[in-house]
Amino acid sequence: MTQAPTGRFISFEGIDGSGKSTQARLLAEALRGQGREVVLTREPGGSPGAEEIRRLVLEGDPGRWSPETEILLFTAARRDHLERTIRPALTRGAVVISDRFADSTRMYQGSFRANLRPLVDELHRLMIGVEPDLTLILDADPSSSLSRGLARQSGEDRFENMGLAMQEALREGFRALAAAEPRCALIDAAGTPEAVAARIAAAVQARLGAWA
Amino acid sequence: MTQAPTGRFISFEGIDGSGKSTQARLLAEALRGQGREVVLTREPGGSPGAEEIRRLVLEGDPGRWSPETEILLFTAARRDHLERTIRPALTRGAVVISDRFADSTRMYQGSFRANLRPLVDELHRLMIGVEPDLTLILDADPSSSLSRGLARQSGEDRFENMGLAMQEALREGFRALAAAEPRCALIDAAGTPEAVAARIAAAVQARLGAWA
Ligand SMILES: Nc1ncnc2c1ncn2[C@@H]1O[C@H](COP(=O)(O)OP(=O)(O)OP(=O)(O)O)[C@@H](O)[C@H]1O
Ligand SMILES: Nc1ncnc2c1ncn2[C@@H]1O[C@H](COP(=O)(O)OP(=O)(O)OP(=O)(O)O)[C@@H](O)[C@H]1O
Ligand SMILES: [Mg+2]
Ligand SMILES: [Mg+2]
Repeated sequence: MTQAPTGRFISFEGIDGSGKSTQARLLAEALRGQGREVVLTREPGGSPGAEEIRRLVLEGDPGRWSPETEILLFTAARRDHLERTIRPALTRGAVVISDRFADSTRMYQGSFRANLRPLVDELHRLMIGVEPDLTLILDADPSSSLSRGLARQSGEDRFENMGLAMQEALREGFRALAAAEPRCALIDAAGTPEAVAARIAAAVQARLGAWA
Repeated sequence: MTQAPTGRFISFEGIDGSGKSTQARLLAEALRGQGREVVLTREPGGSPGAEEIRRLVLEGDPGRWSPETEILLFTAARRDHLERTIRPALTRGAVVISDRFADSTRMYQGSFRANLRPLVDELHRLMIGVEPDLTLILDADPSSSLSRGLARQSGEDRFENMGLAMQEALREGFRALAAAEPRCALIDAAGTPEAVAARIAAAVQARLGAWA
């Protein structure tokens, strides 16, 4: 009997500009260098349908959607991403690395914009139900992260435009999450990209040791 | 003390091509002729954000979204429609006439495409919570309705393209709904638009008598 392959699901979380996309890419390269199949993906987005929903949520005015509508749109995008990208990859034994996942919704919509955490949790339970095996939370100074993020002028700045106070609150939320959830590892995001990548490699080794 | 104005919320439901848009317009004209403020709106859509979500759900391939993702997108659009169009209009005392509302989701996603009715109901309870004061269900022959609908070549034919069997099942679902829900009136949709409009005027008079 052949054993079904077991994929692993790793997510990156942290405030805007903390280095998630940079580190997700570096980790993907490192794991590919070890001969693993890696699917590097992101949220919101990560499947053709979810990328279309992404444009609706990230572009335009901060007041464009109410927090409740926004949660529904993020959940729709996540469901599509899960069905079309994440689950098929895990089933064939790949490592899935997602640049943001459900924790971003818990933090952005669930605590700061409105006290909607119970609603976020209920929707997650109903429609998603999956957590990563490991969540790497990049802990970074909000003021330098914010200026790094806005410097890119991506046009997807609805959240960055909500300002520094929001990023400070988000950082606190992410730190509390890391302390509460055993699947999370808090990573110091200061220093060069290579220095941060070394911390991440150590955390992946420690948490998923036998596997990595 | 002045009494706060009380709006009324009327929805039209029924299979594709049954005459909902035609009759919604005729009822709006009739009520405006009586001096009422009428907000004529539609789903999915009815607010700028919801109209953008509408394009995602009605255009493209029938398999573009899973039933679960589709339910989330419809619920997001409905939430925006409710917040930005329906509630403000009812608060100022207007009559809101919506060409489709939550019953469409109950029928299309909740029964025919997949047995997801409990999920639809749970999402409605969590995110919407409102029902119309009166729902007019147009009961029409599926084969003639389908050819009328497709003849328009609107480009929004994802559901019509699922075929006649789907429309037959939908008709049965709507009839069962009309029988189960006191807020619903089943309207025979055969005959000229004027003949159908006369039946609707009678139903509105009977149900919302003191008000109409
Ligand atoms: N360790 C680092 N030192 C200096 N600059 C960095 C470092 N890591 C990333 N950057 C740069 O900072 C900016 C933000 O990094 P990155 O896009 O990886 O962050 P992010 O967390 O993905 O941001 P967002 O939340 O906006 O997607 C980029 O221009 C990136 O090149
Ligand atoms: N009573 C009627 N007799 C003949 N044709 C009609 C009648 N009512 C509507 N039509 C025509 O049938 C077509 C479908 O009507 P309408 O658009 O009002 O239906 P609908 O229920 O809104 O359809 P859809 O579900 O596709 O939005 C239109 O071309 C309309 O002009
Ligand atoms: Mg990024
Ligand atoms: Mg219509």
